[in-house]
Amino acid sequence: MKIDILSLFPHMFDPMKESILGKAIEKNIIDLNIVDFRKYSVDKHHNVDDYIFGGGAGMLLQPQPILDAYQEIQNQNEQSNIPKGKVILMDPAGKKFNQHSAEKLSKEKHLTFICGHYEGYDERIKSIVTDEYSIGDFILTGGELPAMTMIDSISRMIPRVLGNKHSAPSDSFSSGLLEAPEYTRPANFRGMRVPPVLLSGDHKKIKLWRQKEALRKTYLRRPDLIHRDQLSDTQKKLFLDVRIEEDQNR
Amino acid sequence: MKIDILSLFPHMFDPMKESILGKAIEKNIIDLNIVDFRKYSVDKHHNVDDYIFGGGAGMLLQPQPILDAYQEIQNQNEQSNIPKGKVILMDPAGKKFNQHSAEKLSKEKHLTFICGHYEGYDERIKSIVTDEYSIGDFILTGGELPAMTMIDSISRMIPRVLGNKHSAPSDSFSSGLLEAPEYTRPANFRGMRVPPVLLSGDHKKIKLWRQKEALRKTYLRRPDLIHRDQLSDTQKKLFLDVRIEEDQNR
Repeated sequence: MKIDILSLFPHMFDPMKESILGKAIEKNIIDLNIVDFRKYSVDKHHNVDDYIFGGGAGMLLQPQPILDAYQEIQNQNEQSNIPKGKVILMDPAGKKFNQHSAEKLSKEKHLTFICGHYEGYDERIKSIVTDEYSIGDFILTGGELPAMTMIDSISRMIPRVLGNKHSAPSDSFSSGLLEAPEYTRPANFRGMRVPPVLLSGDHKKIKLWRQKEALRKTYLRRPDLIHRDQLSDTQKKLFLDVRIEEDQNR
Repeated sequence: MKIDILSLFPHMFDPMKESILGKAIEKNIIDLNIVDFRKYSVDKHHNVDDYIFGGGAGMLLQPQPILDAYQEIQNQNEQSNIPKGKVILMDPAGKKFNQHSAEKLSKEKHLTFICGHYEGYDERIKSIVTDEYSIGDFILTGGELPAMTMIDSISRMIPRVLGNKHSAPSDSFSSGLLEAPEYTRPANFRGMRVPPVLLSGDHKKIKLWRQKEALRKTYLRRPDLIHRDQLSDTQKKLFLDVRIEEDQNR
């Protein structure tokens, strides 16, 4: 996958190269190209922002530097036969990014991320945008952190990126439910003990315990994620037990 | 505000220091302390993770390094009379972080962020945690990006952190509605023109246009954010117009 990023703070992406993305780049699974669009400003001081028409505090990103930077990247990509992919703008008013979006976007051959900054951007920047995404209902200084977040989440879903091929699918959300609590050594840590069933070696019991605790956690914290018609018969039975237990505790 | 971060990848936070947070640190508004908890591992190879009790792919973070790192930070904070604040674990099953959480947390004197990594962590780590947060329904490689995201969003709400004191409140979500489109120079960019009203100099008309377009965008994209009883009389009237116009366009 080719990933182009348009940002005024290209160094913000440096740490990503050390993580999972770094390994994906080494393995030639991802080709990451970060472009400082300030370089494309035709303003003699290389300004990229200006006052808001109609008045208002702060400055807006102008369309020229971003649109010209995008055009040059496009020309380069065309020469390398990279298809024109989705152009994603990070915006608090965009579609909510979730695991389903990550899975879908992980199948693309080319993604471009536009990171806004300052108070906002000129609406005409959207003329090249195909998708607007938000990672949540909160305000950030710029689009860099949300872009990194999306890229991390998308990369993990690309085959061969994660070393352990078993890690991705069992994660939260992929199964539709939250995960059961997990424990590692020591079995007794300063008086806090691991649930005995997990030390029993009885794999059938362990599996049932995990299914039940996953249902309990999801029921208590995110009941919206439980879709009864998607539960197996065993899960339905366990879910009934969980509800009886938890409703008694209230 | 004192912010302690427990992470296996302290360098991932470097770029933050160049942004808004860097300025807040310079102004002594925020004291950021990033601790690599691997240093606290009593394992002779400084391992921090181990296999999962009951079986399963991957590794879990053990409680010892994180709990001991936290204890030492606490001791140091006590000596400096820093109150024991909230201890936040980044977890996909946590409360959904939003602008309201950012505002609330910006009033704290001390926050500790615990960043998980690998496939997960031992449940007993939660014995020191006061709050679990998630930034959204997607899976990431570690807690570093969500922690940075939360810290960016929280910092902006601390008085004096943003240079321009007018920037924060007019942002999306703070007003409850999405923002109207904005434009900067040039008025005509390659044939794409700024809406004439914004060039009119008629501030009353501009204000109405912006209110209406904010309502339109919110209606089309996030109708859940519109609470009729919180709209002014003018907004109610504009909202009626928007709905008539948009419902005709469908």
